[in-house]
Amino acid sequence: MADDRYIVGVDLGGTSINVGVVPFDGGPILGMRSMPTEPGRGAKSVVDRMIGMMRDAMRDARREASIPESGFVGIGIGSPGPLDRASGTVIETPNLGWRNFPLRDLIANEIGLDAVLDNDANAAALGEYWLGAGKDVDSLLALTLGTGIGGGIVLGGRVYHGASDVAGEVGHMTIDPTGRRCNCGNYGCLEAYASGPAIAARAVEGLRSGVASALPELADGDLSDVTAETVYQAIVAGDLYAKEVMRETAAFLGTGVANLINILNPAMVVISGGVTRAGDHLFEPLRGEVRRRAFRQAADACRIVASELGDMAGVIGAAATYRVERFGELD
Amino acid sequence: MADDRYIVGVDLGGTSINVGVVPFDGGPILGMRSMPTEPGRGAKSVVDRMIGMMRDAMRDARREASIPESGFVGIGIGSPGPLDRASGTVIETPNLGWRNFPLRDLIANEIGLDAVLDNDANAAALGEYWLGAGKDVDSLLALTLGTGIGGGIVLGGRVYHGASDVAGEVGHMTIDPTGRRCNCGNYGCLEAYASGPAIAARAVEGLRSGVASALPELADGDLSDVTAETVYQAIVAGDLYAKEVMRETAAFLGTGVANLINILNPAMVVISGGVTRAGDHLFEPLRGEVRRRAFRQAADACRIVASELGDMAGVIGAAATYRVERFGELD
Repeated sequence: MADDRYIVGVDLGGTSINVGVVPFDGGPILGMRSMPTEPGRGAKSVVDRMIGMMRDAMRDARREASIPESGFVGIGIGSPGPLDRASGTVIETPNLGWRNFPLRDLIANEIGLDAVLDNDANAAALGEYWLGAGKDVDSLLALTLGTGIGGGIVLGGRVYHGASDVAGEVGHMTIDPTGRRCNCGNYGCLEAYASGPAIAARAVEGLRSGVASALPELADGDLSDVTAETVYQAIVAGDLYAKEVMRETAAFLGTGVANLINILNPAMVVISGGVTRAGDHLFEPLRGEVRRRAFRQAADACRIVASELGDMAGVIGAAATYRVERFGELD
Repeated sequence: MADDRYIVGVDLGGTSINVGVVPFDGGPILGMRSMPTEPGRGAKSVVDRMIGMMRDAMRDARREASIPESGFVGIGIGSPGPLDRASGTVIETPNLGWRNFPLRDLIANEIGLDAVLDNDANAAALGEYWLGAGKDVDSLLALTLGTGIGGGIVLGGRVYHGASDVAGEVGHMTIDPTGRRCNCGNYGCLEAYASGPAIAARAVEGLRSGVASALPELADGDLSDVTAETVYQAIVAGDLYAKEVMRETAAFLGTGVANLINILNPAMVVISGGVTRAGDHLFEPLRGEVRRRAFRQAADACRIVASELGDMAGVIGAAATYRVERFGELD
């Protein structure tokens, strides 16, 4: 008999909000929707939009799958952090401008369902573990490369949270102690080399020194319009300089991933975010750098792969987070 | 009623073998003894010595505590790695020259007791967790600085081993991708900056460039005799250059520890090895570097302390390893 329980998954990101209804046993998502976050319009606007999207998603899901009102067991929310899981509070999100914001209870009260809050990168990692690239492994580390670099660690079917809910902050791992300045104020963080904005900044530095490339044309001649996305487009168009920028990105990322593999010895590292569109231009040199730098027994045990769930990882993972918190392990 | 079970703990190190009988409930060690490893005399000699020491330790312990023959429940062995725990085999120890060496079963058969094998750094971490610096925390990371840098991770009362038993290989974390050459063949590993030989090598480089210091005198004028130990002696004698070498060591180590804290968010980092004799000359700048580089919520949650068990951590931890493997968690 099919399981008739459903979980609402909410993925709050810096640029978009994704919401969907996820069957308890991991079937296809229902009522999926996505909207821009628009943090500039204020916290109330963001939360109102999340709640509206959840109501719409639940209505659509009910229609698609004839779910009774009692079929919705709860809500899983993935949010940028750091956050306090016990109180369901977002401690600080520079991008959204929130501080000690009681996101979980605001949503739970409004929708009238039990809710659970976790970090978005943790949720994405659990999503990949449940239904994505990691569905056949026991442990994985998921890296999400976007505006920043987030990390989530799944050990034995559960997210590993650490002593104060901030385990997996891999973006601020130092890979070069006197290196590039990071937004966090420090020098040489992985994020300062391999986040989307860092990839664009490194590409532009080379262009300013006069290297030949199709990038300026792709950005209509305005170097300040070069983004990581432009770099991926140039790679597809065969641009040698863009490929070189990606090789360097892969080397920096490979140094960070090798460190993570030496420390955590995971069975899998899952990479997600726009950067995976560079395909083999990213993954081949990345795997090479890891093999050079990681302990052999650890590198041999670890597959380095692209996300399978892509943008869906957050919603699926948020639902998985609820399921694990309230019902125990996923398998 | 007192627990009358006892575990034999064996700590095989590159320079010395330590053996003791550890009460099941963690009381004082009985029959403790230590001998040089002398790997040059071959594997058989090393194993024979280990077995002789165990027999002597058990005999002394029986006498001291009137333990019946049936009081010894098993043997815990900590060995340099990498190793395969399931088969009890040491895969490779460059220092001892062993390859796929069935250490566990050789010892178990000879002594006639059940035995368990784990990595020496893991054992030391579990020892500190059970009866040392970490006895009041849930999770810790223990770093042992000696000829190399070993790491052990304890999460929720158990050693975290990873997918292929090599988690915690923190010595080969890259902290500077184009930095100092490491014995492993790579560049910029933590071990190339903060192990005992690396501390000595960095000190000698400065001396060769003519800096004023008491170090040459302490080494009887022969710079090739400067060791990390000489550097600690010079610090105690108030030598400014030796203090500067230690400040640099602390900065390198702090970079590595900050990375570990960002990734693992442990409640405690325990540092052991000769380097802790530098005391505040190590720990103050180390904590400062961590505070600069680690995510605030992670740094705030983590105490960085010196080992409490010192040389006893290996023996106590090896016994704890046996107890956890065969009887479950320690508390």
